[in-house]
Amino acid sequence: MKVKEIMDQEFIIVSSNEDLAQASMKLEEHRKFTAPVVNADKKLMGWITALDVTRGLREGQERVSDIMHGKEEIVHVHQNDPARIAVLAASQHKVVSIPVLNDADMLVGVVRASDIVKTLSHLYEIKVDKIFRAMADELKGVSWEELMEASAIVTRRRTGKMVTALDYEKRIKDSTFGEAIWATGGLEKFFVGLIAIGELVIARKIAKARK
Amino acid sequence: MKVKEIMDQEFIIVSSNEDLAQASMKLEEHRKFTAPVVNADKKLMGWITALDVTRGLREGQERVSDIMHGKEEIVHVHQNDPARIAVLAASQHKVVSIPVLNDADMLVGVVRASDIVKTLSHLYEIKVDKIFRAMADELKGVSWEELMEASAIVTRRRTGKMVTALDYEKRIKDSTFGEAIWATGGLEKFFVGLIAIGELVIARKIAKARK
Repeated sequence: MKVKEIMDQEFIIVSSNEDLAQASMKLEEHRKFTAPVVNADKKLMGWITALDVTRGLREGQERVSDIMHGKEEIVHVHQNDPARIAVLAASQHKVVSIPVLNDADMLVGVVRASDIVKTLSHLYEIKVDKIFRAMADELKGVSWEELMEASAIVTRRRTGKMVTALDYEKRIKDSTFGEAIWATGGLEKFFVGLIAIGELVIARKIAKARK
Repeated sequence: MKVKEIMDQEFIIVSSNEDLAQASMKLEEHRKFTAPVVNADKKLMGWITALDVTRGLREGQERVSDIMHGKEEIVHVHQNDPARIAVLAASQHKVVSIPVLNDADMLVGVVRASDIVKTLSHLYEIKVDKIFRAMADELKGVSWEELMEASAIVTRRRTGKMVTALDYEKRIKDSTFGEAIWATGGLEKFFVGLIAIGELVIARKIAKARK
């Protein structure tokens, strides 16, 4: 996934010679805490934040150029960068949005922390059930019931808790990937549990075929 | 994981009768776009944003109470809520931070979009290699070399590309879980690939044992 796939192409811009009060009203109208400063060629010149605008107004500044941060001071990414570069930048610099440039240094989008949260959280919201359905499809000759039975056996072995195949089926229908990795103690442990289940159903399938 | 594990306990507060210019300087000093409004008992009364502060100052308002959003207007979570509730709220309402309350309705923390990005992105940054090492540990009697060989075979079958065990080993050392799920086309597909690899190494292990 590339930056351009998660960026927002709807954004407000200000120019460096724009009146500060006007820029302030623009931010407010669009409910944005920050905005990129561009020139007539749409090249990124800098960045303003609502905090700097307020300070500027309080101190009697008149133009965007009086309070803007120059391009060299701000984090920006290229539209063809891997999306994870923008994610890491947002996490590291704790910024609410990051300007996105094309090869000509023109501003083509903005990546917002809220968009990143949305993209990342989609993964967490996948139902565990869906992963098991994909697993059942992949393991030819293993029925859904056999898979649930093996899952219950592995769970009993690992946790010591009495869990039936039906309990297990109900549990994975209700839980998401995010809950499952937190409940099992991390991504690797979650996968290892799935592999153990896979190993058991395959062993049982082979044993059945030999009979 | 609960909200209290991802919340920030360091946050600024304002009171409803505070001078607006003073609140504005407080936001600016701490580089925060928003702040909770609390009463003397630390109970959450409302919320202010830098945008409302600026508008208030421009329009000649004097107190935080003149521009604050009431508690009923804002999203808030409980410290013992599952963390995913805060993640979903941030994603849905596109807010930069969410106040966290305890049983007595007192403000005990703030969940920021940047903290959520950090928590979620940690998962994406796990090296795929680590998942395969855990898999090799789980599958007793299967060596790392056999696992890589099976992985290369499955990859050749699925993609038609000539990939050796060494190529595969190098690839998973360099790639993260986030890149892998984007490259394979989603979590289920990534996982189905792992199951296919698991199935093959187990079949080869059994065939070897029979010889």
